[in-house]
Amino acid sequence: MSYVLAIITAFSSSNVKEITLKARGQAITTAVDVAEITRSRFLKDLKVSSIAIGTAEMPPREGETKSRMVSTIEIGMQKP
Amino acid sequence: MSYVLAIITAFSSSNVKEITLKARGQAITTAVDVAEITRSRFLKDLKVSSIAIGTAEMPPREGETKSRMVSTIEIGMQKP
Repeated sequence: MSYVLAIITAFSSSNVKEITLKARGQAITTAVDVAEITRSRFLKDLKVSSIAIGTAEMPPREGETKSRMVSTIEIGMQKP
Repeated sequence: MSYVLAIITAFSSSNVKEITLKARGQAITTAVDVAEITRSRFLKDLKVSSIAIGTAEMPPREGETKSRMVSTIEIGMQKP
């Protein structure tokens, strides 16, 4: 809900027309939830303008030697 | 990896040009992973043709009375 509030706050500024949510790994589900909750409950005129998925390389965790690949998502949301 | 294999198998049939991955809730991350792994490691000419997000209503779990809203994703993948 703090992400939803951040989006509402950003859009309440009159010069903000579009924001992009970015997430990777397990947070991808959270990003989709945030976009859906914002759009269905709060800012009903908001449109999802773009969705892109990709892969990012993360440095190895402590004690590991290989870097890991994680999926990413970018969700653009636009005021009419 | 079993989902990746299912996609490769589907596309190996010559009359399949497009498949759609559908997932909801925590499985959204898995769907993005599956799309990215298939595209980056196995079928490199595959294109993501569409991505849509939405909300679905799920019946209440045992012992609960309210239905829950879950986020959904649909990822379309296309052969050239």
